[in-house]
Amino acid sequence: MNQRTEEPVTVSVGLGERAYEILIGAGLLARAGAEIAARLPGARAAIVTDENVATLHLEPLQEGLGAAGIESTAITLPPGERSKSFDALEETVDGILGARLERRDVVIALGGGVMGDLAGFAAGIVRRGMNFVQVPTSLLAQVDSSVGGKTGINTRHGKNLVGVFHQPRLVIADTATLDTLPGRELRAGYAEVAKYGLIDRPDFFAWLEANWRDVFSGSAARTEAIARSCRAKAEIVERDERESGERALLNLGHTFGHALEAATGYDSARLVHGEGVAIGMVLAHRFSARMNLASPDDADRVEAHLREVGLPTRLEHISGALPGAEALLSYIAQDKKVSRGALTFILTHGVGRSFIAKDVPASQVLAFLRECQTK
Amino acid sequence: MNQRTEEPVTVSVGLGERAYEILIGAGLLARAGAEIAARLPGARAAIVTDENVATLHLEPLQEGLGAAGIESTAITLPPGERSKSFDALEETVDGILGARLERRDVVIALGGGVMGDLAGFAAGIVRRGMNFVQVPTSLLAQVDSSVGGKTGINTRHGKNLVGVFHQPRLVIADTATLDTLPGRELRAGYAEVAKYGLIDRPDFFAWLEANWRDVFSGSAARTEAIARSCRAKAEIVERDERESGERALLNLGHTFGHALEAATGYDSARLVHGEGVAIGMVLAHRFSARMNLASPDDADRVEAHLREVGLPTRLEHISGALPGAEALLSYIAQDKKVSRGALTFILTHGVGRSFIAKDVPASQVLAFLRECQTK
Repeated sequence: MNQRTEEPVTVSVGLGERAYEILIGAGLLARAGAEIAARLPGARAAIVTDENVATLHLEPLQEGLGAAGIESTAITLPPGERSKSFDALEETVDGILGARLERRDVVIALGGGVMGDLAGFAAGIVRRGMNFVQVPTSLLAQVDSSVGGKTGINTRHGKNLVGVFHQPRLVIADTATLDTLPGRELRAGYAEVAKYGLIDRPDFFAWLEANWRDVFSGSAARTEAIARSCRAKAEIVERDERESGERALLNLGHTFGHALEAATGYDSARLVHGEGVAIGMVLAHRFSARMNLASPDDADRVEAHLREVGLPTRLEHISGALPGAEALLSYIAQDKKVSRGALTFILTHGVGRSFIAKDVPASQVLAFLRECQTK
Repeated sequence: MNQRTEEPVTVSVGLGERAYEILIGAGLLARAGAEIAARLPGARAAIVTDENVATLHLEPLQEGLGAAGIESTAITLPPGERSKSFDALEETVDGILGARLERRDVVIALGGGVMGDLAGFAAGIVRRGMNFVQVPTSLLAQVDSSVGGKTGINTRHGKNLVGVFHQPRLVIADTATLDTLPGRELRAGYAEVAKYGLIDRPDFFAWLEANWRDVFSGSAARTEAIARSCRAKAEIVERDERESGERALLNLGHTFGHALEAATGYDSARLVHGEGVAIGMVLAHRFSARMNLASPDDADRVEAHLREVGLPTRLEHISGALPGAEALLSYIAQDKKVSRGALTFILTHGVGRSFIAKDVPASQVLAFLRECQTK
């Protein structure tokens, strides 16, 4: 049941003068204009979106903006990770400046994580920082990139290596837009939802084990799962906005995951980000068990749940050939969570008990990856 | 007399956790490595510079870095404003990432304002913010771009419309490097020195009228003028880091100046930035007198001093044809100091008594520009 008339849930992200609210609920897209106009009176808008999302959601958004007296222009880019490039950034910046928007006007990201990261980066650098509003339309974007202000693009040296911290003024997460997502993309986003349970909320993970079907079908459980995820991330970000410490916990599953994304050439037919995170989280639990930090039962439990919802959890679930363990290790070493050549991983003492492990010996990681590949 | 053994003067920029020091004195370049190593132990460095500056100053800088145990790589770009482009930014970012620098390593800008703006922008976005050190080698860069953390590049829509605020960790201003500057460039930088007197330090302006020859010849007066300029800018930036108010005073002469730079196609053979500022400051004083805000005697005094040091002060001092008053006004309206269509100018009640004037009628500006062109 889609509760299209439900009152939205509000999650506050407390970052002092950069504090903002996340509105979560079904049918919010049509209200976005009024919500933005209430917070940024007199602003004009540039909407940054991709061709697929534009077909589905651009018209209702622009209608709502117009009804609220907000003049808007749309910058529409090709869908997919390739739009997180210098070329797309320059095109976006040029579109915003071409519309002669000023600092107090607003850049709106409409779409998934790619559009959020790209539009947020553009908003962060045009006139050295414009107002930014996120309207995430994927589960991944609603629970991850909409919180915390990280923006960025990819380079040939790796993903997200270039960007800024730029907090949005408002996030509007219309849970009904998720009904238009392909199942695979919904599952991939769910990996990040589960991650919050695995980091430090064992109760939430247990709740997900019991309620995941309702989350996928779009009931109030979906809104609850998204709100609990946003709150979990907000609490970590509030304590460490610039990622000097604890915020690294959010990388649970990401060091292995990014390496797998790189090893598959960022080919979304083979692996999308959330799938890499799902495999990466299971590997992080298995590796923790191998290091005698956690019980293998926890790794089994995590894998069982992610398999149940239909996510890949092992290297052999990735179609096509993977490079060998040495090559995977070198992708890990290239990842930006490397510090002074020592490998930093998010490891765990069990479900909901993750921690930052510095100086993990590369030899141990290599041996573990070899075991994973020969199984 | 160049006092190559003088103790450096230190100006502190008090920005809380982003506070930093500016070291000013003759012969500091050779000590840069030791100063950086003392503040950023263990860091590796990427030096961003241009071909001209590299010939003069790269080797001593790299020698000093090496002696202090800092491994460095150089990224050398073509000289001139054209390096403030998306292409040059991408090349710089690629060079930093190619050297596999991490967040706690350091990007060093070696050169004038262009290199400072470009390298600072790159440092601000690689890994969402790396350490940044400025080694400005032009007078303009030592007194202006080295203080305040503004970075950026140009686009076809205008100058400095894209960038970030990214404060350096340290600024090392070797006043002896100014001996290698062409006289025209030294004079252009001097316009920004005089600007600090004109904004709110009438005593400093009077001191410059008496001592400008020593500033140009490179005595201790040069170090004093640079230090007083940095202190003046630091005090304004400390009160308004993100330019939400008072910091706009630093744009004295810049609204007219930017329009003239645009109108001459950013052709440095015709007009360089500081020359535009010199003419712009005189125009701001003349326009203020015309609006009965200040005495014409002040405009005469400002013009007399800037002419004395050899700076252009009138439209007719620009070689080649200029567009008409309407076209100049439209360049002004494109400038980023426009807010909601109203024209914002920095006007003055007299020497050292500048203020921010909002809602200046465009018709008055147009009439004034017409008078300037028919004189």
